[in-house]
Amino acid sequence: MELEFLGTGSGQPSKFRNVASIAMKLLDERNAVWLFDVGEATQHQILKTTIRPRKIEKIFISHLHGDHIFGLPGLLSSRSFQGADKNEPLTIYGPKGLKSFVNTALRVSETHLSYPIHFVEIEEGTIFEDDTFKVIAEPLRHRMEAWGFRVEEKPHAGELLIDKVKADNIPAGPVYGQLKAGQTVTLDDGRTVNGKDYLGPAQPGRVVAIIFDTMPTEGAKILAKDADVLVHESTYGISKDEGKMARAHGHSTTRDAAKLANDMGVKKLVLTHVSARYIGPLLKKFITDANKLFSNTYVARDMDVIDVPFTKESHE
Amino acid sequence: MELEFLGTGSGQPSKFRNVASIAMKLLDERNAVWLFDVGEATQHQILKTTIRPRKIEKIFISHLHGDHIFGLPGLLSSRSFQGADKNEPLTIYGPKGLKSFVNTALRVSETHLSYPIHFVEIEEGTIFEDDTFKVIAEPLRHRMEAWGFRVEEKPHAGELLIDKVKADNIPAGPVYGQLKAGQTVTLDDGRTVNGKDYLGPAQPGRVVAIIFDTMPTEGAKILAKDADVLVHESTYGISKDEGKMARAHGHSTTRDAAKLANDMGVKKLVLTHVSARYIGPLLKKFITDANKLFSNTYVARDMDVIDVPFTKESHE
Ligand SMILES: [Zn+2]
Ligand SMILES: [Zn+2]
Repeated sequence: MELEFLGTGSGQPSKFRNVASIAMKLLDERNAVWLFDVGEATQHQILKTTIRPRKIEKIFISHLHGDHIFGLPGLLSSRSFQGADKNEPLTIYGPKGLKSFVNTALRVSETHLSYPIHFVEIEEGTIFEDDTFKVIAEPLRHRMEAWGFRVEEKPHAGELLIDKVKADNIPAGPVYGQLKAGQTVTLDDGRTVNGKDYLGPAQPGRVVAIIFDTMPTEGAKILAKDADVLVHESTYGISKDEGKMARAHGHSTTRDAAKLANDMGVKKLVLTHVSARYIGPLLKKFITDANKLFSNTYVARDMDVIDVPFTKESHE
Repeated sequence: MELEFLGTGSGQPSKFRNVASIAMKLLDERNAVWLFDVGEATQHQILKTTIRPRKIEKIFISHLHGDHIFGLPGLLSSRSFQGADKNEPLTIYGPKGLKSFVNTALRVSETHLSYPIHFVEIEEGTIFEDDTFKVIAEPLRHRMEAWGFRVEEKPHAGELLIDKVKADNIPAGPVYGQLKAGQTVTLDDGRTVNGKDYLGPAQPGRVVAIIFDTMPTEGAKILAKDADVLVHESTYGISKDEGKMARAHGHSTTRDAAKLANDMGVKKLVLTHVSARYIGPLLKKFITDANKLFSNTYVARDMDVIDVPFTKESHE
C-alpha cells in the first residue's frame, strides 16, 4: 500500500504543484489502484508513473471544485483509448452533480467508453466494503458539499505456526492450507484440530484517512482516529493572517491539520493541497512549522510516493 | 504574429506531445492572444510560456472531441483566478454543444468567472471581422462536425513618403498624420493635397490557415489558398497502411497535407496533431517524407514558436 501524490497544489496548477490527485496503490493487496480526486492533467502526471490506467478500479471525489474534477473526462477517455475492456469496470464515488458533469463531457465529445462506469452518490458512513477493505465517508465543512475518506484495511490472518503444527505431528498436505484458513479439520488418524490454534496473531490492517478541502469539523475527527497515515489539506501556514485566509476560503492551516493529528492519535501526517505561495524560504518555514506542531509530518510534493507500513507492534 | 504550439499530439497526451492547442500571439497587432483548440493541460503548457491568460481574447474550437476541448473549463477558471476583470471579456467560437459542455462544468464546479464569456456558434463564412483581422470558418470532414479557420490580417497602410512630402514643401505638423491616414488636406497656402499620393505601397496582411482533424475536403482548399502559413493535422505518415488508418479515423496523412499545400500555393506548411507512434527513427522518416512532398514543411513539436513573416515582395 503506497500513496503516490499526483498533485499537491490548490486552486490552479503552478509550475511545481499540479491540482489535486492522489493514487492509492493497492497492487499487492488487490492488484488495483484507487484515485482520490482527479484535477486537470492527472492523466499527464500518471504518464510519469508506473500506474496503468486500466488498473484504476475506483475513483473517490471529495467535492466538485474544478481543481478536483476537471481531469476526470480526459482520464476516463484515455483509460478507454488504452484498451480497458468491458470486464474492467470503474466505480466513481462522488457528490451529486458529478455524474452530470462527466456524462455531459462524454456526450458532447462523443466519447464512447470501452468499459462500464458506475456512479455512487456519497452518503455518510460505509460507502464500500469487501473482504479486504472498507471505505468510510464523512461530511467535511467547505464552501460546498465536501467529503473526507477513511480507508480501513481488514486484518490479515495470522501466519501458520509451522513449528507447532510439526510438534503436534500433523502431516504435511492440503490440511496445512485448511488450518491456515482457520478451519477445523479431521485428520486421518481421527484427531480433530482447529486451525485457530495454529495461527499466530492476526495482523491489523492499515488505516489511511484522506481529507481534502475543509475547515476543522467533527467528520474529520471520525475519519482521522488512530490512522496510520492522515493525509490532510493545508492550504495555508500557521500565522494569524494565514488562518484568516484559510477560514475565508473554507480551508485549513498547518495548525488545524496538526491539531487533528495530535488529538486523534494519528501516526503520520502528510500535508497536501498547499498554496502556490509557499515556495523557497516560505516553503521551508511551512515545513519547519508543521514539524514543530506534529513531529511526524511530511509536506508532500508532486510525484512523492509514501509507503503505508504496518504498525510496528503487529510486526513482532 | 507568432504561433506557439502548446500541444502537437493526437487523441491523448503522450510524454512528448500534449493534446491539441495552438496560441496565435498577436501582441504587436492587437495586444492579444488567440487560442485554437484547448486540449487538457493547455493551461499547464501556458505556464511554460510568457502568455498571460488574461491576454487571451478569443478561443476558436475546431470540434468537440475531448483532446480538443477538455482543457477549456480549467483554463477559463484560472483566467478568472488570475484576475481577468469584467472589462476583459472572452469570446469562444465553436460548434453547437460547446456551450453546454462549458456551462455544465462551470455550474457543477460552482465556478463564477470574474469576466464575461460570449459563445459564438460557428457558421460557414466570416465569423469575425474588425479593422485589423478577419476570420473565416469552413466545414471540414471528420467523424463529427468540424471546422477549419483562416485568419486574414488586413493590409497595413503604406509608409508616408517623407522625401516626397518635403520635395513638395509641405510643412511639418499635424498634417503629416492626416496624410499618413490617407486623408485629403487643405494646406495653409491654399493647396489641396491627397494623402494617397504620399504613401508607399500598402503591405498586404498575413494569412494563416489552421486545419485540425479532417480528411481532405473542399473547405480546406478555401481556407488554405495562398496562405503564408498553413497549419494542418497530419495524424499519420505516407504509407498505404497509414493512409487507410487515417481514413478509418477521419484524419489526414502527411501526403494529404502536402498535396493541399502544393495545390493551393501555400508558402509554409506546419504539421501538427501527430500520432504518438512517431518517435525516434519513425519521426525522422515522417519529417523527411514530409519535406520530400512539400519542401517548406515543418513538423511542430510542443512549445515551438513559429514566426509568420510578411511576404518578401511587399517588404521591398
Ligand atoms: Zn475546494
Ligand atoms: Zn478529432
